[in-house]
Amino acid sequence: MSHNSFGHLFRVTTWGESHGEAIGAVVDGCPPGIAVSLSTIQAHMDRRRPGQSRFTTQRREADKVRILSGVFEDENTGGSVTTGTPISLLIENTDQRSKDYSEIKDKYRPSHADFTYHQKYGVRDYRGGGRASARETAARVAAGAIARLVIPKVVIRASLVQIGPHKIDYDRFDWDQVDKNPFFCADAASVPKWESFLDSVRKQGSSAGAIIEVVAEHVPVGWGAPIYGKLSADLAAAMMSINAVKGVEIGAGMGSAELGGVENADEMRAGNTGPDFTSNNAGGILGGITNGDPVVVRFAVKPTSSITTPRQSVTTANRDTEIVTKGRHDPCVGIRAVPIGEAMMACVLADHFLRHRAQTGREAGIGFS
Amino acid sequence: MSHNSFGHLFRVTTWGESHGEAIGAVVDGCPPGIAVSLSTIQAHMDRRRPGQSRFTTQRREADKVRILSGVFEDENTGGSVTTGTPISLLIENTDQRSKDYSEIKDKYRPSHADFTYHQKYGVRDYRGGGRASARETAARVAAGAIARLVIPKVVIRASLVQIGPHKIDYDRFDWDQVDKNPFFCADAASVPKWESFLDSVRKQGSSAGAIIEVVAEHVPVGWGAPIYGKLSADLAAAMMSINAVKGVEIGAGMGSAELGGVENADEMRAGNTGPDFTSNNAGGILGGITNGDPVVVRFAVKPTSSITTPRQSVTTANRDTEIVTKGRHDPCVGIRAVPIGEAMMACVLADHFLRHRAQTGREAGIGFS
Amino acid sequence: MSHNSFGHLFRVTTWGESHGEAIGAVVDGCPPGIAVSLSTIQAHMDRRRPGQSRFTTQRREADKVRILSGVFEDENTGGSVTTGTPISLLIENTDQRSKDYSEIKDKYRPSHADFTYHQKYGVRDYRGGGRASARETAARVAAGAIARLVIPKVVIRASLVQIGPHKIDYDRFDWDQVDKNPFFCADAASVPKWESFLDSVRKQGSSAGAIIEVVAEHVPVGWGAPIYGKLSADLAAAMMSINAVKGVEIGAGMGSAELGGVENADEMRAGNTGPDFTSNNAGGILGGITNGDPVVVRFAVKPTSSITTPRQSVTTANRDTEIVTKGRHDPCVGIRAVPIGEAMMACVLADHFLRHRAQTGREAGIGFS
Amino acid sequence: MSHNSFGHLFRVTTWGESHGEAIGAVVDGCPPGIAVSLSTIQAHMDRRRPGQSRFTTQRREADKVRILSGVFEDENTGGSVTTGTPISLLIENTDQRSKDYSEIKDKYRPSHADFTYHQKYGVRDYRGGGRASARETAARVAAGAIARLVIPKVVIRASLVQIGPHKIDYDRFDWDQVDKNPFFCADAASVPKWESFLDSVRKQGSSAGAIIEVVAEHVPVGWGAPIYGKLSADLAAAMMSINAVKGVEIGAGMGSAELGGVENADEMRAGNTGPDFTSNNAGGILGGITNGDPVVVRFAVKPTSSITTPRQSVTTANRDTEIVTKGRHDPCVGIRAVPIGEAMMACVLADHFLRHRAQTGREAGIGFS
Repeated sequence: MSHNSFGHLFRVTTWGESHGEAIGAVVDGCPPGIAVSLSTIQAHMDRRRPGQSRFTTQRREADKVRILSGVFEDENTGGSVTTGTPISLLIENTDQRSKDYSEIKDKYRPSHADFTYHQKYGVRDYRGGGRASARETAARVAAGAIARLVIPKVVIRASLVQIGPHKIDYDRFDWDQVDKNPFFCADAASVPKWESFLDSVRKQGSSAGAIIEVVAEHVPVGWGAPIYGKLSADLAAAMMSINAVKGVEIGAGMGSAELGGVENADEMRAGNTGPDFTSNNAGGILGGITNGDPVVVRFAVKPTSSITTPRQSVTTANRDTEIVTKGRHDPCVGIRAVPIGEAMMACVLADHFLRHRAQTGREAGIGFS
Repeated sequence: MSHNSFGHLFRVTTWGESHGEAIGAVVDGCPPGIAVSLSTIQAHMDRRRPGQSRFTTQRREADKVRILSGVFEDENTGGSVTTGTPISLLIENTDQRSKDYSEIKDKYRPSHADFTYHQKYGVRDYRGGGRASARETAARVAAGAIARLVIPKVVIRASLVQIGPHKIDYDRFDWDQVDKNPFFCADAASVPKWESFLDSVRKQGSSAGAIIEVVAEHVPVGWGAPIYGKLSADLAAAMMSINAVKGVEIGAGMGSAELGGVENADEMRAGNTGPDFTSNNAGGILGGITNGDPVVVRFAVKPTSSITTPRQSVTTANRDTEIVTKGRHDPCVGIRAVPIGEAMMACVLADHFLRHRAQTGREAGIGFS
Repeated sequence: MSHNSFGHLFRVTTWGESHGEAIGAVVDGCPPGIAVSLSTIQAHMDRRRPGQSRFTTQRREADKVRILSGVFEDENTGGSVTTGTPISLLIENTDQRSKDYSEIKDKYRPSHADFTYHQKYGVRDYRGGGRASARETAARVAAGAIARLVIPKVVIRASLVQIGPHKIDYDRFDWDQVDKNPFFCADAASVPKWESFLDSVRKQGSSAGAIIEVVAEHVPVGWGAPIYGKLSADLAAAMMSINAVKGVEIGAGMGSAELGGVENADEMRAGNTGPDFTSNNAGGILGGITNGDPVVVRFAVKPTSSITTPRQSVTTANRDTEIVTKGRHDPCVGIRAVPIGEAMMACVLADHFLRHRAQTGREAGIGFS
Repeated sequence: MSHNSFGHLFRVTTWGESHGEAIGAVVDGCPPGIAVSLSTIQAHMDRRRPGQSRFTTQRREADKVRILSGVFEDENTGGSVTTGTPISLLIENTDQRSKDYSEIKDKYRPSHADFTYHQKYGVRDYRGGGRASARETAARVAAGAIARLVIPKVVIRASLVQIGPHKIDYDRFDWDQVDKNPFFCADAASVPKWESFLDSVRKQGSSAGAIIEVVAEHVPVGWGAPIYGKLSADLAAAMMSINAVKGVEIGAGMGSAELGGVENADEMRAGNTGPDFTSNNAGGILGGITNGDPVVVRFAVKPTSSITTPRQSVTTANRDTEIVTKGRHDPCVGIRAVPIGEAMMACVLADHFLRHRAQTGREAGIGFS
């Protein structure tokens, strides 16, 4: 058991505080012989990196990843490959402004982990949220980049599908749009609406929540496991472990409560290599095991708790006070959660791929002959 | 790693198929010296037991629990107490009607785990869902009854809050109603509506989804953990591991996407023993750690996949077919999920209580002096 | 983490006390589709079963195993195969004589776990050692019988190689002798010596220690793992977890301290399918990973602590007393440890086979082309 | 499960290769509020550091530890304390001479992990043993230094007690000698003998094995656990996980096979706060749980496999060859294993302390009132 590790066979351990020297991840259990390049990892880092638009925190971090172990020259190709030993990834913190936080050293931000960390541990690194900072998620993205290499045929993408009350129109859903706007939004027409909405939210000294949808395509039938090892349970934990997440849905999600059994049934028709499904209310998972359809997960991110509108709070001595959070904060942390959601999906699937291979000796289901 | 185990320090392993000889659970890591009586466990079993109203399966199971180990006479009181060694709980299956299933031996039920288990393992116990049956959850309820004894001050209750499109009115929410109707519903006025709704659903050969809300009160500040050990992540996994669950929410849940940072902030005022919160959008959890407010979780259960309306499917040889599921099924599996949700909450909290005590040596937060 | 579970992917959880209703094991993670018959398991149980000679306890236990889950008819052969779900194994206790123990209820047996269990938990099942009884190992043997089926090509055998000061002569080592004498001894000439030695030990009211050697042949190159996942580390834990074991050796073992690097080197010569080793000081393991040579483990079992010679002790109230242990005890618990050592070897190897397959996708090393 | 992690609640994950940029450890689960200083950790590092006498490798490594996370200023004292979040420790590699290894790139060193790593993973970092290098143990010593702080009352010391055939005389055992000679030897009179023995071994182009004894004093009664969680099993795994270790003993160890039950019995006499033991054949552990006596572990380290005497081997293409290992190697790796053994003892005990506190809420046994 380890509070800072995730996964069983593809196992990621992260460490580091927002305003410490560095943060990092150790990836253990990665299969050997996988070609890894820093640039591939960096490309994912760059998508999550702060300061890329006015809608994310203005903290400037290069987020350059260093690989300290677990990779060596391949004896045949001479390129860098994983060796099967732990891959240590390190990202230096370069733009800490810890002074911004001295004011909140003795106060708790409402809806922030300040209070609970302090009560749990009796000591907290108050600078920038310390370990509770979204900065920790940079390490997840680095690990997720490696996880993708373990399951190269699986395509994992995500889109922001809602900011505040404004949902995208799924009829306009186009994956190609995602990297063309600052919101990772698959619906181009939503972008200007969200821009003006977020601008107004910020003017009001507030912040906004969001919903992210992550989709994994070309996942074989048979990954996942029953009961407590359900793929859906691990995905739920993975997404809920991201800062500020308050809800997770698979397929029809919370809305499946409103469906009748007749509509909910994803009917099956014989396809070329096995059954095809006429719908995907299951979100690709039945009984905790993949059915070959895309795995679809949505999660909700609450609005940033660090806001400039004064809120009632207490001091660390339990005296009434008021608090206004300065520092550089994302007006909508949900935006940068998009690549993080992808990374968590990648880690969970890579782990379940290995788990499935362990127990069955196969990389997929038994298939139809 | 174990697909059929749950929890780290309070660890529950379940086993058994729907139509095997018996099912059971092994509870490991339970603190010693806790008074346990069969009748306490049985009371919880009886709430989940099938066949208690026309709205649940007509399978008749006594669900009598036997304790085979881990409990011994206390040297002082002579009563039965836990010894700190594993508690083996066994429940015999007495009312299997395996013939009901011979017809579906060669067909997959849409939206059921039939297809995915078969593809994953190449063999499945098709009788009544085998391991994927809701019958497995009886073992969870037995384990949950013991978990409650580990954290006796915590009060865990649940209510069905939605069936199909019909939500309860929270203004009428009354915990005392929950055990007075066949739906575990805290809103008495919803009961007749739900009865007629479910009767009509069944007449149509369909089934209904539902949402359950589980609330844990008197949970101390400081339980839970950061990052991947978040209490919220473990609760999400716990609820998503229950059969047919497709969504999990903590506090404001998916709806937190629509809140602004100003409204979402659970403001704090100095109380007698620490801060009081003016609202609970957090659902009692900040940064994965409890804040002293009630822990509030909701989860959605999809409609039963075994229905009498014919649905398109394929055979195990990938030929088109049609399927009608007979057997004795719950028209709304969400109903019996109420005590199961309570059991999972109890298991997660008991585990986190021990984890917190391990790391800090305290049973709660540092408090305010 | 679970004190009563062993293994990671092939995971065994045992439960039960010496004088409770039953004991048992849950085997999780077993690959699906493996033919299992009760008689195969029972054959291993019968070797460990007490009361088979005058050199083991006279407690009479049928040790009949029941399989309660995880096994179902194969769709092709109709025979029983594993389904990939947890296999629950149950063994009833039938010959408890708890009265024998009332006398020691308030005293601690020197060199027994009585004192430490009581201090740790504050309560103990004093009847027959409770959970600390060697009776728990029956569940291990049942699990080990299944583990063997996971790695059918591996041949696992063990022999008692020393009782008290009397060692076997390795020049006479013959596996065929093992099941022909009450000591599981591969050296027939040692049998009469041990018989007279043990008879005299018993007459003196004492007991004897022993050393067991377990050998696994046909283990492929490449199983195991580096660092904390070393096969040797897991074997050491496995053997040390058996009651009364105080030492574990791999290959040259403790004696390797006396070897020079020149002699210790297991030199290599090119063989048909890879290198052959000219010696096996490594005990088949280098850097925690198998090298293709037989895996050789030895472990020492201390003499039974329950003896009829009076020993100084204290009461549970910390008063000086003297104790004589009646009841039915093995004069040399090491004898029955032979099949237990085999079972632990099987469990460890099955687990590492799955772990290797998970990470590499292969069942062995890369080989030589 | 993680091959590069150790411990359950006090959990150490190490990473890094001998000739990579750096090596390191992440310590998760450490209790908060523990004062930590770099100099305390460094003191332990310096004892293991290579190049301190002619009897260890001449590689020069400063072994300076950096703490990258998990430590922050205490709000009261202003000193550095653990925060309860993961402690990342990094040690740079500064004196790699990878050229030394180009010659063995295509050959396997007999009795080295070269062959098995290559077969398992299909790729290996051949420079200096890569991950299999004893260099990894520097990270263990750093982690062990923190573990000691978690259990400050426990005194952990170790001594080399045998090199080659030369054992110390226990009658001259004096802990104060350990840090006064290059062998960490508690028997001053053995030092000159070992010096001349090792010098002659080296002249012969060979190397020597050794035995280390680790003793933990003031361990409370009640730590540890039954069955697979036995303290003895975890210690066995811990020591066997150290490079080149082939045997582990607790208390009387392998020699307990030769004891009769009468002599082996550690008799008990009522002491002031509980029973005193008249002997310690148990090595402080009964049934896997501490009895209050010193915990005594011994382990054997085989002779260094990298020697200058030519040995028969094969190439990576399975062709016969001969090998001579240059590079800078310890003539007796057992010497530097002394602080490593201490570190592993500290990690295991810290972990079991937390596990005991989790389950019982106490820091020791129930005691005698």
